[in-house]
This record gives sequence, C-alpha cells and structure tokens, in this order.
Amino acid sequence: MILEIAQIDVRQGAEAAFEAGIREASAIFRAAKGCRSFTVRRSVEKPQRYRLLIEWETLEAHTEDFTGSQAWKDYRAMVSPYFESPPSVEHTELTLQAF
Amino acid sequence: MILEIAQIDVRQGAEAAFEAGIREASAIFRAAKGCRSFTVRRSVEKPQRYRLLIEWETLEAHTEDFTGSQAWKDYRAMVSPYFESPPSVEHTELTLQAF
Repeated sequence: MILEIAQIDVRQGAEAAFEAGIREASAIFRAAKGCRSFTVRRSVEKPQRYRLLIEWETLEAHTEDFTGSQAWKDYRAMVSPYFESPPSVEHTELTLQAF
Repeated sequence: MILEIAQIDVRQGAEAAFEAGIREASAIFRAAKGCRSFTVRRSVEKPQRYRLLIEWETLEAHTEDFTGSQAWKDYRAMVSPYFESPPSVEHTELTLQAF
C-alpha cells in the first residue's frame, strides 16, 4: 500500500472554498480504481497549508491510471483555482507501524 | 487529535542505521503521555527521506510535555546522528476523512 502525501498551499482567503471543493472532489477519488482512503488535514502552523493523505493499492494506480485521466482533470478543475502554487506530491512506503 | 508530520532527510548510507534507531526509539513514544500512534514511512521518490506520522491527543502533549523532555533527548540521541539536516515538523488537524 502506498500513501501519497500531497502538500497544497491555498491562496489567502480561499480556505473555505478549497475545503468545499476538496469535499466535492473526494467522490472522484472514491470512484478511482485502487484508491483506498482519502483524508485532508490542515496545518496548525500554516493554516493556508493542507495535506492530502491518499492511500493507493499500488504506485501505478495513482501515477499511471489516475494522473492525467478525465477524473483527475475534473478533480483539478474543482480545486486548482484556489492553489497558491503547484502542489508538491510524494509517495511513501511503510517502514514501521510501531503502535 | 493532532497528527504531527515530521520530515527527516537521512545521510546517504545511513538509512538502515536510522531505521534501526527509530524502531528502538518508538518505545519512547509508546510511553509518552498523550501519544496515540507512531508510524514511519519512506519516500519512493527520495529514499533518504522519511516521514514520522505521530498522533497526539493534543498539540501541547507534543510541544510542551514531550519536546525538550529527557525522553525527547533520549529519542534524539538515538537517531539524530543520521540526520542530513534538521527535521521539519508540522502539526495538522483533520479537515476531512472522506473514506
């Protein structure tokens, strides 16, 4: 299982609109093949910064099947107007789940 | 519930030693008041980059009770020799758990 961590900085004043947009967009991820969970978190220290934590069955489910697809374009249309800058996206593998 | 996200870049060649150290150090977090979960993940794109995902009951459980304590010093002694640079630490609050 891959955990995608996407860091998104939102324009000042656009936080509520972004949150509404990402809530709507979550239905796209729910329907995406190989997408297992979808969580949005907001930074305490930098309230314009959000992180999407998205579990994918495989790396390719995100990078090959989803990214660039029509579903991805629909998702981006819902939220990218609120981006301050391009998101930074990284994929991670589990090293240790201690407790 | 607060999720701390700590990004740690490890010196090249020190990955295995860091992983052993953080596994040992996880016992310190297990014993820390208010610490609910402790996960370590490794970047696919940048294999020297790790992220600690640590749940705390409150922000203060991490920032006031844990950070700077003897337990924290013990934890840092176990892993900081392998750091390439100072970790970047951020705390996040849940905005949306869609599925």
